[in-house]
Amino acid sequence: MNRIEELRSLVPAEIIVTDPDMMEGYRSDKADLVAAGKPLAVLRPRCTAHVATIMKWATKTGTVVVPRGAGTGLSGGATALDGGVIVTMERMNSIRRLDPTNHTVEVEAGLVNAEVSRAVADSGLFYPPDPGSFEVSTIGGNLATNAGGMRCVKYGVTRNSVLGLEIVLADGRILRTGGQTIKNVAGLDLTHLFVGSEGTLGIITAATLRLRPTPVATATFAATFPTLESGGRALDSIFACGVTPSVLELMDNVTINAVEDYQRMDLDREAALLLIGQADGTDALAQVERMVSCCDDAGAALSVATADPAESELLLQARRLAGWATTEQYPTIIEDVGVPRSRLPELLSTIAAISEDTGVRIATVGHAGDGNLHPMLLLPDLDDDTRQRAMQTADHVCAAALALDGTITGEHGIGELKRHWLPYQLDNTALQVQASIKHALDPANLLNPGRGF
Amino acid sequence: MNRIEELRSLVPAEIIVTDPDMMEGYRSDKADLVAAGKPLAVLRPRCTAHVATIMKWATKTGTVVVPRGAGTGLSGGATALDGGVIVTMERMNSIRRLDPTNHTVEVEAGLVNAEVSRAVADSGLFYPPDPGSFEVSTIGGNLATNAGGMRCVKYGVTRNSVLGLEIVLADGRILRTGGQTIKNVAGLDLTHLFVGSEGTLGIITAATLRLRPTPVATATFAATFPTLESGGRALDSIFACGVTPSVLELMDNVTINAVEDYQRMDLDREAALLLIGQADGTDALAQVERMVSCCDDAGAALSVATADPAESELLLQARRLAGWATTEQYPTIIEDVGVPRSRLPELLSTIAAISEDTGVRIATVGHAGDGNLHPMLLLPDLDDDTRQRAMQTADHVCAAALALDGTITGEHGIGELKRHWLPYQLDNTALQVQASIKHALDPANLLNPGRGF
Repeated sequence: MNRIEELRSLVPAEIIVTDPDMMEGYRSDKADLVAAGKPLAVLRPRCTAHVATIMKWATKTGTVVVPRGAGTGLSGGATALDGGVIVTMERMNSIRRLDPTNHTVEVEAGLVNAEVSRAVADSGLFYPPDPGSFEVSTIGGNLATNAGGMRCVKYGVTRNSVLGLEIVLADGRILRTGGQTIKNVAGLDLTHLFVGSEGTLGIITAATLRLRPTPVATATFAATFPTLESGGRALDSIFACGVTPSVLELMDNVTINAVEDYQRMDLDREAALLLIGQADGTDALAQVERMVSCCDDAGAALSVATADPAESELLLQARRLAGWATTEQYPTIIEDVGVPRSRLPELLSTIAAISEDTGVRIATVGHAGDGNLHPMLLLPDLDDDTRQRAMQTADHVCAAALALDGTITGEHGIGELKRHWLPYQLDNTALQVQASIKHALDPANLLNPGRGF
Repeated sequence: MNRIEELRSLVPAEIIVTDPDMMEGYRSDKADLVAAGKPLAVLRPRCTAHVATIMKWATKTGTVVVPRGAGTGLSGGATALDGGVIVTMERMNSIRRLDPTNHTVEVEAGLVNAEVSRAVADSGLFYPPDPGSFEVSTIGGNLATNAGGMRCVKYGVTRNSVLGLEIVLADGRILRTGGQTIKNVAGLDLTHLFVGSEGTLGIITAATLRLRPTPVATATFAATFPTLESGGRALDSIFACGVTPSVLELMDNVTINAVEDYQRMDLDREAALLLIGQADGTDALAQVERMVSCCDDAGAALSVATADPAESELLLQARRLAGWATTEQYPTIIEDVGVPRSRLPELLSTIAAISEDTGVRIATVGHAGDGNLHPMLLLPDLDDDTRQRAMQTADHVCAAALALDGTITGEHGIGELKRHWLPYQLDNTALQVQASIKHALDPANLLNPGRGF
């Protein structure tokens, strides 16, 4: 009996997909530079018991397992491995329990991020973490990568919105971590070890998430700057003046022009930098007006503030279009680096210089408030030569971030793509400790081997 | 050559204390129910290299090590073990680097919590986590227990204010985790594994902390309630109305009377519950006024709001006095349990019933906004019989919290005191996973054995 036949005797046949055409859509995530392997099967469990059975079978048969959410990852952490199985969590998408009074909800890992906020909106609540992919990516994938987004600057990353997890371990045991309380220090905090572990320590099957009351009001501003330095001064001043932006995004000149090429928004094509920010709460407009003062004092060429929801949406639209404007016009590699916020102007200058050197056009957007940039490499094609040049360019961008006390990934994860860069950020001791924890939880190295660290 | 003589050849003699009188002050923390062992020596390292040498020596000689901050812990996590050494971090208290622009500071583990805020005040910044012991407890101890405090309801617990750690491992290797960026997903998040690990996985020697701008304004309210239920309704309503309290504390009737007995504050001795809250930011008073409306609508007997700093301080004083009022009048055991916030009235009623049953007076204060209560057992003496009755009472309180989907510790940690209760909260799989991680990092079980989990 081969391995898949053995599995058929353990779980309903309909959760096992082996048809190559049907498997094709599960082989890659959105990391175009990572080659996808050929999986043995795609498994679509409907419940935690299925996942536990799959992992017991995987341990018994020595089968490699790649856990998968919606496959929107940009680092190759969900790309298929030769001879392994993909466990897609898409069918485990129910809401197990909503507690509007305590602002918590327990959901299964396959639920799409945006569905969480939709499901709790009637209770006056929302789920803050909003990665760019929030309309399609799943909570499980968000947890596995500790996903970020535009609202992190006020509400924190995915980690800050999780109270407890249900996880299936490599050997099929079911681990429950955390609980339903805001504060909890009973034992080692396994919840926070699994958040961001990229499917290497276990498969997250469900999570208790923390919700927030929907803001009573939101206001928005946009400001353009003639130089990177003046934009940087504005950022420093916004964070020194005591306001709490709920969004604070930036776009560089290349991005502004890519957006304007894609859809006319009347953006200033000469600006070095565009900042777009929001505040929420009863004093949202007052806070935004203070941010605009900071921008004006720092030398903004143009600034505008509004509390009108439609106008706010329009301002934010320019930022939201950046991804589409680039990916629809060019094959695009989206990078993800972070630095202490005040180093952003230096990083942006260095990125411009790298682009000049390598001849690869780079449009940079980012979560300015968190010092997290997404340089987007705009490629003429995806030929081998171009790919190689793209990889070299990405390497230079990572090196630039590290040279500024930064990180090679702020919110996308290491996956497979960035693994060769990790030893430049982490020393041997850190890598050894990570390996020892992996070995303690997955001694046969079955869960997403070669990914994450 | 005995072990201590061997150590003397490795580190400056002045860091080794073996005089029994001098060691006495390091034998216990503030968990009166935990018996202190007799240490071989107290070690007072001045730098990370000393700690590394100590751990290499400990591994070579098989010596048990108890890391220690200021010894303010309430669970016995820093109490001496027979034949082991205590490593007190009190002399490693320097500020290594302050970056006011990026709101970060790197400090050594022995720095007292309050000193962080004092050192950064001139830069218009503060360090949010404020455990009750903040004037004396150290950052290292706060990190080891993931300490909470009154400001957690808005700013989060210690975990939410740490970006990176320097740790000495059991074998003396120095591990650096995290970094200086707000967002960072490079590899497993070791920082968050070590926060709250109670000295069982390594000795935290330094940390990069996240600071916040000092609020431009703060306002305060107090409200008394004739019943627990009306107070509970007020809490639910405050959290539903979209305000963000920066402090939201409660005191029960026994505490109100203990405070009033200790120092006349003109508190309402008949009230079932007193809520004291704050908001900060430009709209602090408006937010506090909304909270007062919530209280009034829920049936508050009396409510008052103020934006005056002196009056604010006076209102908060009642809450701050609770600890003193009880510990100076009675031998006191301070418990620490958490529940989903809406279950607080049920937990308070159950605690009152437990007090009735066991005959142990219980005064309960707590961080209402986080659902985290500190029932304080007011004892007539510390005789063996009384201690036993106190332990039984504490057991009932923990059981009550667990029955309400809660936790046996919200912010004080498991230490040694609560270890026998952990299997009621965590199942075998969770305990096994914790043990396997401990084994991976400290195979000889030298770091604070028998504590934490």
